[in-house]
Amino acid sequence: MTTNNLNKQTENNNKPNKKAQKQQSNNDSRKTSESKGKRPHGSRKPKTPEHPYKIIPLGGLKEIGKNCTLIESGNDILVIDCGFAFPEYEMFGIDIVIPDFTYLKENIDKIRGVIITHGHEDHIGGIPYFLKEINVPIYASPLAMGLIDHKLEEHRLHAEKHVIKPGDFFKVGKFEIEAIQINHSIADALAFSIKFPGGHIVHTGDFKVDYSPHDGKVIDLNRLSRLGDEGVDLLLCDSTNATKKGYTPSEAVVRKSIDDIFSNTDKRIIIATFSSNVHRIKYFIESSMKHKRRIAVSGRSMENVLALAKGLGYLDDIPESIFVKVGNVKDIQDKSLTIITTGSQGEPMSALTRMANDNHRSIKLKKNDMVVFSSSPIPGNEKVISQVINKLYEKNVEVVLASMTDVHVSGHASAEELKLIHTLVRPRFFMPVHGEYRHLIEHAKIAHALGQPQDNIFILSNGDALDVSGKKASVNRCYTSGEGVMVDGYGIGDVGNVVLKDRKNLSQSGLVTIAVAIDSATGSLMSKPELKTRGFVYVQEHQDILDEAMEVIYNTLGYCMENKIKDEAALTKAIRDDVKSFIYKKTKRNPMILPLILYI
Amino acid sequence: MTTNNLNKQTENNNKPNKKAQKQQSNNDSRKTSESKGKRPHGSRKPKTPEHPYKIIPLGGLKEIGKNCTLIESGNDILVIDCGFAFPEYEMFGIDIVIPDFTYLKENIDKIRGVIITHGHEDHIGGIPYFLKEINVPIYASPLAMGLIDHKLEEHRLHAEKHVIKPGDFFKVGKFEIEAIQINHSIADALAFSIKFPGGHIVHTGDFKVDYSPHDGKVIDLNRLSRLGDEGVDLLLCDSTNATKKGYTPSEAVVRKSIDDIFSNTDKRIIIATFSSNVHRIKYFIESSMKHKRRIAVSGRSMENVLALAKGLGYLDDIPESIFVKVGNVKDIQDKSLTIITTGSQGEPMSALTRMANDNHRSIKLKKNDMVVFSSSPIPGNEKVISQVINKLYEKNVEVVLASMTDVHVSGHASAEELKLIHTLVRPRFFMPVHGEYRHLIEHAKIAHALGQPQDNIFILSNGDALDVSGKKASVNRCYTSGEGVMVDGYGIGDVGNVVLKDRKNLSQSGLVTIAVAIDSATGSLMSKPELKTRGFVYVQEHQDILDEAMEVIYNTLGYCMENKIKDEAALTKAIRDDVKSFIYKKTKRNPMILPLILYI
Repeated sequence: MTTNNLNKQTENNNKPNKKAQKQQSNNDSRKTSESKGKRPHGSRKPKTPEHPYKIIPLGGLKEIGKNCTLIESGNDILVIDCGFAFPEYEMFGIDIVIPDFTYLKENIDKIRGVIITHGHEDHIGGIPYFLKEINVPIYASPLAMGLIDHKLEEHRLHAEKHVIKPGDFFKVGKFEIEAIQINHSIADALAFSIKFPGGHIVHTGDFKVDYSPHDGKVIDLNRLSRLGDEGVDLLLCDSTNATKKGYTPSEAVVRKSIDDIFSNTDKRIIIATFSSNVHRIKYFIESSMKHKRRIAVSGRSMENVLALAKGLGYLDDIPESIFVKVGNVKDIQDKSLTIITTGSQGEPMSALTRMANDNHRSIKLKKNDMVVFSSSPIPGNEKVISQVINKLYEKNVEVVLASMTDVHVSGHASAEELKLIHTLVRPRFFMPVHGEYRHLIEHAKIAHALGQPQDNIFILSNGDALDVSGKKASVNRCYTSGEGVMVDGYGIGDVGNVVLKDRKNLSQSGLVTIAVAIDSATGSLMSKPELKTRGFVYVQEHQDILDEAMEVIYNTLGYCMENKIKDEAALTKAIRDDVKSFIYKKTKRNPMILPLILYI
Repeated sequence: MTTNNLNKQTENNNKPNKKAQKQQSNNDSRKTSESKGKRPHGSRKPKTPEHPYKIIPLGGLKEIGKNCTLIESGNDILVIDCGFAFPEYEMFGIDIVIPDFTYLKENIDKIRGVIITHGHEDHIGGIPYFLKEINVPIYASPLAMGLIDHKLEEHRLHAEKHVIKPGDFFKVGKFEIEAIQINHSIADALAFSIKFPGGHIVHTGDFKVDYSPHDGKVIDLNRLSRLGDEGVDLLLCDSTNATKKGYTPSEAVVRKSIDDIFSNTDKRIIIATFSSNVHRIKYFIESSMKHKRRIAVSGRSMENVLALAKGLGYLDDIPESIFVKVGNVKDIQDKSLTIITTGSQGEPMSALTRMANDNHRSIKLKKNDMVVFSSSPIPGNEKVISQVINKLYEKNVEVVLASMTDVHVSGHASAEELKLIHTLVRPRFFMPVHGEYRHLIEHAKIAHALGQPQDNIFILSNGDALDVSGKKASVNRCYTSGEGVMVDGYGIGDVGNVVLKDRKNLSQSGLVTIAVAIDSATGSLMSKPELKTRGFVYVQEHQDILDEAMEVIYNTLGYCMENKIKDEAALTKAIRDDVKSFIYKKTKRNPMILPLILYI
């Protein structure tokens, strides 16, 4: 399959390509023939006048998440991806973190559009928040656009939308963009070649090199090679797996493992995976058909994505009759049923977690079930996943994990694949993107080992600008705010570090709040103070501590009255200090002490 | 080395052993000669009368942590280990969780002593809390006892202490105990054979099979085999790595990797590992000496354990002059220095984390440093470790992880080693211990696959009792409370689920507290209510929400006055409900609403 398809694809791509090359040669002096030696690094004649441009990452650097990168050339800004990040450890109560759009709002007239590499949340999740501020056209592949549509409906937003496919050429402002086929753990993932006066950038998006993907659409290495011939100024390349040696295995490995599992069990099979991995899910369906199993789908996001995939024709060869409603699974024999579900990350409200907790409306787990986790834990989720797995064991369910057999492979390129891309694209400048600091550094080392001069590798922080002008490039640090914006409920950016610190303190020892009514004229106490605690001690069994605390309050107030202390700040501080030190001495805990003074 | 030492050891062990066997044959009818077939499963003549006994795990089952198991025979109770567990996810503010000692307190007169398998916190960390309630003799190996001594000093406690060593026989109440050499990631780790009228139990403790441990003391497989010949009723065996196939590699693998690292770098080497792994630390020191490096030690627990190890003579062949004070490391060339440190789990206050954060008093990380993590992440710590690693990369430090090269091996037996132990000990009954549910189940499967009848395998929960009487055994569920007791500051058990739920709620959206002064006669408002928030919104920028909330409060109070509602419960509920629904509508957040009513 691979060789033929590969040739066919690149033939297809070559057609518009030639046009593009011609176009290119008219307004750009790049000449392939000038390439000399092993790694020309985008060698070409310098232009006069130079057209300087900036690359400003708003997210995705030194972190996994909220990918968002700007290219600014003269009066045009292009936005690549607009994702969100999941809250960091100790960001209590925060739903998501989005890029800081301040710089974009300040330059709103320059923004020509947003181009999307693929439909994962860390690439599209920030779009609704972006569109509320800045309404410009969005360019995305069919599946990514379908997922964006869902978000826009939810947020009641509209945007000008353009669906793009591999091999498409389109212009956004002055940017001439080509969408390039790559492989990733979601269908329709793209890389981009972006040409504009003074610049040619290749952005890989998230990718891997898979010679046997399920849809047969192999990453377009030939096109990347051709772009390298033309001359690429700057490569922005996925670094997620830069610390992983060797090659990331093909999805074919998963297909083999899944087929083995289906061949060797009569159990009811429940497979949990990422809902966006449409190709893998399609394979689960095909393998089920082959082994005479019907399919039920559980989990809202899984149902949504499958409906989307059907609408896009990705499941055209799957007969509708193979599916069975989740409500009807009781009627199907174990050996004739596959349930595809969400919850591979132990998400508390997901279908699989509800099954494990006996809270699922239709599916009750039992001894003759097998649960396959076609996934690996996203760092930070290990503990909750472990809890779900133990609950499955308690139900005598057979559990298959990626750590036992190859039921999952990564969607990101490992070191050897990165070397391949660098070798084909041969950029003058290189900026590793999408990764924690260690991933960016290891990616930089890979590029340097291949001959990329250290001075031409740029590791930026979010909010830095890479200024490129002809053969020169330099970094301006902290060009705009690289810190993200925390979203909590409807609040965008209204929770800052002070609020988070309070939440953390409250979570550790709770609070003690004390209301005191004072005669505003004399400063004397008007009633018995009122004291309540939450998250401090189990009050019913430890009333004694609170009674003693009340004694402390009376003493403090007595002292204050004697010394004519009656202003709010001083009274508040006196009560807080005395109660705090009493409680710490008594319990070795530091609850928040919150006095409220009422003047009558 | 191994063969000779092994023989010598078992010879040594055989001496007291013969005595024990003789003793045994007097009051027990076990006869090795009766063993028939492949797996006799403790076959022996039934005794008349039978001496029933109970095994009650108070911790360590369906969890990693707070290992504590009781054997109760007539009027005697023996306690094996007394550890703590780290708080589970969402146990906000909890320091540690200890076993519930209620059953022991109720049977305090029966308790004859505590025997300790080894000095890890999940085996000794509960001892101070135990001793505060129940003061009985403690039996532990030299290193474990040293670590226990530290705890007792800290808590100002005293106990009768007995230091035991492999090969020792001792009697605790009616229990005749033999300490057996095993291998683990801490020095002086023991298994126990425990004989008493009607029973013979082998408890492995935490162990692995290492044919080349650093101290040459190989697990005493011969003794375990001999005990199997004698007949073992019940095996309690470590299950931590039961889901891992094959064999756990020897510490020799780590020594090889460390030696390679030392041979190939002139950088300053900083190694983080578990402070209790004395043998590994000793190897770091020896390898440093070999490569002409001096050694500095940083981190309180590391310093304490090394002082302890020196006192026990474990570092007798290390000259004192090799060590250099942390304050003086500036004077030493990079290639001539190794720093051994704590912080391999990303602990916020540990020495390595302080170095990464530039908060370490004496050690400033720089480009020519290499940091080796001789450890693997304990589940749940992945994120914080990742943060430390990224900070090290930001300092241009070379980072070596166990995922890149073999600088760490587990201390627990994998599946094949477990098979070896089952094959040698051949118990009649088997109870997997030390592990999450999945580990216990997989361990049970291993035993069953080796021929152990399903009916003779018992998977208990903490607080269950296994009742054994001759050839019969059965489980009494929920015999005593298996839930642990949460420790928060000085408070032991005063934080329950209600308090934890409040802490969780407070952590998510903070709180709004409202003080209102009411005329107790008329129910009319005596002053402007006072409203404060913490962890809700950044007040300085969002005063508008609070102003509107105050409007809501006035409306509510107006309505209550009109309708003569003035009792505390009703007023509190009215204010809470109205403010809650206003805030949710406005912000989609659910802060805790805490009204305090003062009657004047």
